Amino acid sequence: MSRDLAITAIRLTPILVADPPLLNTQGVHQPYTPRLIVEVDTAGGVTGVGETYGDTTYLELARPLADRLTGHRVTDVNALHVLADAVAVDAARVDGRADVGGLRGVQTAEKLRLSVASGFEVACLDALGKSLGLPVHALLGGKVRDAVEYSAYLFYRWAGHPDGVVAEKDDWGAALDPAGVVAQARAFTERHGFTSFKLKGGVFPPDEEIAAVRALADAFPGHPLRLDPNGAWSVETSIRVARELAGVLEYLEDPALGTDAMAEVAARTGVPLATNMCVTTAAEIREAFTRGAVQVLLSDHHYWGGLRNTAHLAAVCRAFGVGVSMHSNTHLGISLAAMTHVAATVPGLRHACDTHYPWQSEDVLTERLAFDGGRIAVSDAPGLGVTLDRDRLDALHRRWLDDDGTLRDRDDAAAMRVADPSWVPPAVPRW
Amino acid sequence: MSRDLAITAIRLTPILVADPPLLNTQGVHQPYTPRLIVEVDTAGGVTGVGETYGDTTYLELARPLADRLTGHRVTDVNALHVLADAVAVDAARVDGRADVGGLRGVQTAEKLRLSVASGFEVACLDALGKSLGLPVHALLGGKVRDAVEYSAYLFYRWAGHPDGVVAEKDDWGAALDPAGVVAQARAFTERHGFTSFKLKGGVFPPDEEIAAVRALADAFPGHPLRLDPNGAWSVETSIRVARELAGVLEYLEDPALGTDAMAEVAARTGVPLATNMCVTTAAEIREAFTRGAVQVLLSDHHYWGGLRNTAHLAAVCRAFGVGVSMHSNTHLGISLAAMTHVAATVPGLRHACDTHYPWQSEDVLTERLAFDGGRIAVSDAPGLGVTLDRDRLDALHRRWLDDDGTLRDRDDAAAMRVADPSWVPPAVPRW
Repeated sequence: MSRDLAITAIRLTPILVADPPLLNTQGVHQPYTPRLIVEVDTAGGVTGVGETYGDTTYLELARPLADRLTGHRVTDVNALHVLADAVAVDAARVDGRADVGGLRGVQTAEKLRLSVASGFEVACLDALGKSLGLPVHALLGGKVRDAVEYSAYLFYRWAGHPDGVVAEKDDWGAALDPAGVVAQARAFTERHGFTSFKLKGGVFPPDEEIAAVRALADAFPGHPLRLDPNGAWSVETSIRVARELAGVLEYLEDPALGTDAMAEVAARTGVPLATNMCVTTAAEIREAFTRGAVQVLLSDHHYWGGLRNTAHLAAVCRAFGVGVSMHSNTHLGISLAAMTHVAATVPGLRHACDTHYPWQSEDVLTERLAFDGGRIAVSDAPGLGVTLDRDRLDALHRRWLDDDGTLRDRDDAAAMRVADPSWVPPAVPRW
Repeated sequence: MSRDLAITAIRLTPILVADPPLLNTQGVHQPYTPRLIVEVDTAGGVTGVGETYGDTTYLELARPLADRLTGHRVTDVNALHVLADAVAVDAARVDGRADVGGLRGVQTAEKLRLSVASGFEVACLDALGKSLGLPVHALLGGKVRDAVEYSAYLFYRWAGHPDGVVAEKDDWGAALDPAGVVAQARAFTERHGFTSFKLKGGVFPPDEEIAAVRALADAFPGHPLRLDPNGAWSVETSIRVARELAGVLEYLEDPALGTDAMAEVAARTGVPLATNMCVTTAAEIREAFTRGAVQVLLSDHHYWGGLRNTAHLAAVCRAFGVGVSMHSNTHLGISLAAMTHVAATVPGLRHACDTHYPWQSEDVLTERLAFDGGRIAVSDAPGLGVTLDRDRLDALHRRWLDDDGTLRDRDDAAAMRVADPSWVPPAVPRW
């Protein structure tokens, strides 16, 4: 095998990226959110890029993993996971801690490792593709579609971050009621051509969110709609909402927390349930799938350890008749490109994928990815088909360096306390 | 993407390969068995090779698939399956027909398509690897081990095919009782260094096969042993054998047919059950895994549609805590190389893989693959790391051309009738 593919250096660049004041059941997005950019250099002179969570605990894992991976080849994706498994994690600092930003439930060392590994895997595949002159999708067995559909990710939001907070501004305005949600959806359609819509719920009492979904259904008849309260509801509330919105929703996402609750809601309503909370690790698949708790799994290559694992996960879903779509947390264009490559290879992808990308006004690329009719064209350029803009990367890294530490760990509840000092994340179920 | 990777031509060469008189519950191996060699030429001047079943119905599917795939790129592995799905199969000729040679249960169009596709996929990956200078394992995420362990595949057998049958000869001699089986195992160990052993059973009454396994355990204390009667036993017989051999067997393979039977045997004995009969398609996974009918899945890239699908299948097994090993039907060195590449990439492969290869005195390669300590070293040469010997291929193809049609469809029962004109495949359960 060519020595050109050997990894000679790995650069890890934590950054802070502007994020709008999007509301969820835990609080509000901070004005800046941490991400980690991974660059993998090869002996052949190629650099691959990857992107993952940038919070402190992720960074602590990324550095030793970068040391271990250096010297391996960018083809060594399976070995990467073996190396990641061997990276020491201070369980006392990790296990059982709530993930206040990502709404990923309880943190575990395994979740952290897989998320960190995903950034490295994508960077390796990008470097491999660039080295070989092949797009990443061709490294995953090749695309079966030429474009990947995404949904508009609607959020209740404020027009701006609380007064006194230094933040980037955007022109989306506030959305705090059905009319605001519909206006936001219209703007998404005008700007990006999206034809399916997901509303992040769990923010207002269920009846207000039902009204917002009904308003969307009236404004966009026949278009797929989803509602995601991030597990904020009890089983009884979930069932009531599911029944009220039966026939209106494409699926209901994580109405309640845990396999027991999801299985009961599914059994009693027949409304398809999607999740990126009930099943986020391999160990959770068996029970959830066999009990019918999940009808659509929202895969996320950051959660599952990369693009190859995402393809494997899709195969597991196929074997069990569970649909596949994709979850998204705040991310930049590198991850959107990565999602698009793997989504292009998954047979039977029948639901538009989620993406926060339109909310991100900043990126580290020379050219932003553009939606056409709500779709991203699958790139046939080598690697991911994106180019890192080092000046932009440096600027966002300087913001991270200049931060006093308050924003380096995403904390939506802390951000909410700036506006409401009495705020504590609501106990679940909230309603 | 480089035009060099475009498929310019696909050659399909059916051959007949010498096969010893190995006994199974349906009959005996024919003196020659059909295989299909697939060669994929690229615009860049590279040729990749694959190998699959060569019986008539497989050939009928292979030709239209070759036509459809020509013009695509060797990276288009996922698209290959889409194309294969569109190849018309005369269901009346296929569905419900018993597979008398491969012991694969009832034939279906899906099984045929996946088996045919597997030969094309391996040829594409070989061509891609050769084009890129990468071993096939690197196209599957990279090896996590440097050698793959195989088990000695012991068979009850005659010294030669029945008198009057034209056949190649070998020096293995007969094995028809415990002493013969142990002698065969010793020869396997001396010639290839195998340290685990599988006995193909279902040939003699269970007590004789129990005695053979006990003789193996005495001769090779502490070595992993397996017994595979190909579903010849009733549930009660299976349970009796499992109990008698508990603690002696690494696993019992397909003692009885069907998920119901396997689940009952597993539940009542605690002896791990392996299968390449109960679960051979995606649709069979759910019930078998959720009911605990299978503890080790014997994957087979010919059954599951190639190496990428085999990696996916291994991921499904991991998610459900089901072990993975590999099944083998009569095959040549191309398939052994392919099995070795994918097996090298599968995490947690804890059981030696099966292979018939030592029984095949003929091959289509310039150099046979060699076992060292029962292991095949994982090749880092481009592609599969094997070289087609065109003279040998031509000679075996001439044998196929010269055949009057009697051997072009493997039929172990017909072969048995040469020795015993009254033979009909026994009804199942046989005991």
